[in-house]
Amino acid sequence: MTTISKILDFNKDFVDQNRYEEFKTTKFPDKKLVILTCMDTRLLELLPKAMGLGNGDAKIIKNAGAVISHPFGSIMRSILVAIYELKAEEVCVIGHHGCGMVGLEASSILKKAKQNGIDEERIDILTNAGIDLSSWLTGFQCVEESVANSVRLIKSHPLFLKNISVHGMVIDPETGKLDLVIDGYKDIKSNTQTYPVL
Amino acid sequence: MTTISKILDFNKDFVDQNRYEEFKTTKFPDKKLVILTCMDTRLLELLPKAMGLGNGDAKIIKNAGAVISHPFGSIMRSILVAIYELKAEEVCVIGHHGCGMVGLEASSILKKAKQNGIDEERIDILTNAGIDLSSWLTGFQCVEESVANSVRLIKSHPLFLKNISVHGMVIDPETGKLDLVIDGYKDIKSNTQTYPVL
Repeated sequence: MTTISKILDFNKDFVDQNRYEEFKTTKFPDKKLVILTCMDTRLLELLPKAMGLGNGDAKIIKNAGAVISHPFGSIMRSILVAIYELKAEEVCVIGHHGCGMVGLEASSILKKAKQNGIDEERIDILTNAGIDLSSWLTGFQCVEESVANSVRLIKSHPLFLKNISVHGMVIDPETGKLDLVIDGYKDIKSNTQTYPVL
Repeated sequence: MTTISKILDFNKDFVDQNRYEEFKTTKFPDKKLVILTCMDTRLLELLPKAMGLGNGDAKIIKNAGAVISHPFGSIMRSILVAIYELKAEEVCVIGHHGCGMVGLEASSILKKAKQNGIDEERIDILTNAGIDLSSWLTGFQCVEESVANSVRLIKSHPLFLKNISVHGMVIDPETGKLDLVIDGYKDIKSNTQTYPVL
């Protein structure tokens, strides 16, 4: 039996038994919060449980590393949509210790791609088309710095509102312990800040 | 008391009481699955519960609409990192009914931005710099088509492996009911497919 078949079978029972009833809520976040965090498996349930967040409490955006890669990419758009259309009033960027993006090197991924049949010519074509795979597939060195950088990119975005607080945190993926590395309630005087204030 | 203070206080108790113990897992997804879904508040707990996914079962990527906007954006990178570095072997794109991205118009966001103090000149500067805000801030019309389009973009990505299945689903944000719109186990014959097969 395939993974998808098992999920669909489970889902049928879930719906038939009205197990959705305890999750009833609206599309507007009750805690007025939009969170950007990491896709890590260890955070799936742990992050909301460790923050006391139930269904309906927050918009949650996730990618590898909890990073803003581009001011006009889909993550920044999601944050703006949450604020302008869905009543979010605060933003929280939450990286985590032991993130797979720390120290990730493009060469590791490209080597595995080649081992799995992506030929050298294909990679050359992309490179010659101006796509910087090396930069695109490289992670970061320090999660606190990465969080601070994402906070800075959000705060300085040309369409972001000055009165919206942007906090930065780091979570332990084993215990769920949160550390505040950027207190968004404090005025961030310079938009060029790139290091944690705490 | 601020939202962040309340979360940090809650978190202290959570850690002190060892409530993390039931969530112990590893960074590799037990169900070998990477999911791209929407940031919607209604899916926070409902989506994993309706799929029978516990902590550690899947990498979960989220943005507004569960969309791939660019083949070299952070969402596609996250999917590739999940496959090449974190042992994911299947991809599942899950849109939902009643998504805020359906019918979203850039004019609505830009109007609210101006009402909140983003001046016209700032928007003109971005437009004159070649940034297509209108396209960037426009949603989609049909969730099934959007899911199929994201599945197609993943399947046809130059660094994506042919043997990885990419499924497309739509979830009901009230009941959690899942509908399979693209069965990734079936061979998708054409990479130009843009509509649901079911």
